[in-house]
Amino acid sequence: MSGIEDAEHKAAGSARTQPPRVVALGGGHGLHASLSALRRVTTDVTAVVTVADDGGSSGRLRRELGVLPPGDLRMALAALCGDDEWGHTWSEVVQHRFRSEGELHGHAVGNLLIVALWELLGDSVAGLDWVGQLLGAHGRVLPMSSVPLDIVAEVEGADPDRPTAMTTVRGQVACASTRGRVRSVSLVPQEPPVPQQTLKAVYEADWVVFGPGSWFTSVLPHLLVPALARALVATSARRVVTLNLSPQRGETDGFAAHTYLEVLAAHAPDLRVDVVLAERSGVEDPVMLERTAASLGARLVLADVSAADGSPRHDPDRLAAAFERFLD
Amino acid sequence: MSGIEDAEHKAAGSARTQPPRVVALGGGHGLHASLSALRRVTTDVTAVVTVADDGGSSGRLRRELGVLPPGDLRMALAALCGDDEWGHTWSEVVQHRFRSEGELHGHAVGNLLIVALWELLGDSVAGLDWVGQLLGAHGRVLPMSSVPLDIVAEVEGADPDRPTAMTTVRGQVACASTRGRVRSVSLVPQEPPVPQQTLKAVYEADWVVFGPGSWFTSVLPHLLVPALARALVATSARRVVTLNLSPQRGETDGFAAHTYLEVLAAHAPDLRVDVVLAERSGVEDPVMLERTAASLGARLVLADVSAADGSPRHDPDRLAAAFERFLD
Repeated sequence: MSGIEDAEHKAAGSARTQPPRVVALGGGHGLHASLSALRRVTTDVTAVVTVADDGGSSGRLRRELGVLPPGDLRMALAALCGDDEWGHTWSEVVQHRFRSEGELHGHAVGNLLIVALWELLGDSVAGLDWVGQLLGAHGRVLPMSSVPLDIVAEVEGADPDRPTAMTTVRGQVACASTRGRVRSVSLVPQEPPVPQQTLKAVYEADWVVFGPGSWFTSVLPHLLVPALARALVATSARRVVTLNLSPQRGETDGFAAHTYLEVLAAHAPDLRVDVVLAERSGVEDPVMLERTAASLGARLVLADVSAADGSPRHDPDRLAAAFERFLD
Repeated sequence: MSGIEDAEHKAAGSARTQPPRVVALGGGHGLHASLSALRRVTTDVTAVVTVADDGGSSGRLRRELGVLPPGDLRMALAALCGDDEWGHTWSEVVQHRFRSEGELHGHAVGNLLIVALWELLGDSVAGLDWVGQLLGAHGRVLPMSSVPLDIVAEVEGADPDRPTAMTTVRGQVACASTRGRVRSVSLVPQEPPVPQQTLKAVYEADWVVFGPGSWFTSVLPHLLVPALARALVATSARRVVTLNLSPQRGETDGFAAHTYLEVLAAHAPDLRVDVVLAERSGVEDPVMLERTAASLGARLVLADVSAADGSPRHDPDRLAAAFERFLD
């Protein structure tokens, strides 16, 4: 299978001289890690970012001004910012949060800047491109939908006294912090519009990278937007799933490595995957994981991708080295 | 007198090959008009801007975060922004105000951006220089003090029932909107620190331009900061006073053209002036104005500097043409 892919890849011709076009899906810190690694591997990165946040600065802006929640988009832009003094300084500015006893407390400056550009230009993609230019971003950041989304989760045992009862939980914050086990997620609205640029990026990609990140609230939502899910299934790009290093309190408590894949498959039965990338030391049952990966069409790649200091986060250089082994 | 000045100017040598170094003093819309004209005449403009605003977005930021009120600084930066698409777009962004029913309502985006840079860099001048770079500003914008100031006015007849009674009014908004006649203004604190860059700009200038603008709250305050006033008196730069086109409701109700100069002299007895520039059609008693100008050491220049559509504002091109006659 990989031989056939290589042949196709070569047949495309231009792909040999161009850097690989990589689309990274996600939101929050997981996408930040993914982008920080990918920008070391290729100069053609596009982030497709979740817009379902309803907490913090993003949630306030969304409620007050009726805009997309900008926070995950801002963080993705910061991950791609230029390496020079200009890029570093403006990156710090957009990431800066006001601290006070007053109305600005907690707002990230970049969120306000992105929203201002949206209001001025009336176009979410153009606004993000302008902030990307300001930061000298090494890549592009696009929203997965043109309208704000809400995540709705079916949760088991949210009430400790009724451990088998199912509850419906609405909103990213509520879903991510539930005390129960998330069984499935859906979106409101169910068929949100997707920017043409986002669909185009997915269709024209050489690689699409899912995760790492909050599985139900940052990784799966892309597959729940019908137009985007169709593009992700139909694109000729190869697909990588980067697994999380550790279960996330709430959302994915008690998940084994293969559980992430099972949940992915349950939410997107038509999706085929080419590579599953997991931290070598984090997989308790590699055989089970390999088998589950194979059921999606994927080979399993185990690598040392976590931080050397033992903290539960991906190391950008190590993750980049792992990507490099199969992306080129 | 003008012959002697010309000889000095030529003796300086470098001034013949360098563009004239112009420092414009003021705040708000008046300074915006002055800068819009000056940037057409020279490439070396520095704005020295009042930091006594206590109203609107600036007042809220000052109270919430303990920073300099950024609004007049922002407006000066916008007046100097680059002419290309980049400069225009970012200028619109920094001038953009949020409109909502919520906590961000009325905040100008540039104010938030400037404050973020101040918080990050811990240096008001460096923060403004960064925003200037972002805008491709044709010149530099500096605060007249490193600390926020309050204007205190002695006002006659603030209470209509006691038309001759004197009242003390504190704060720029209260002073600018008083129903009485402002007789004099002072600052709190009385001896605020002035950034070295501000003093240096004044000492090294070829020309210093006072006004137009709210006379008591934007033009005179510079002369009430002792360190800055000493620099303005001692600098070898020549001094221009650009008079307002029309009295301002509240502050300068009933002012004749020469009244502006009398008030200026009363607040800065040691200040000598070289040129008084006034709109030709706005002077009721040119002889009286010429005499008052002469008492300050200045010659009077009358010119068509107001907008052709009859609105009470300076036309940048006409004002530039007037400046050009004596600046070079």
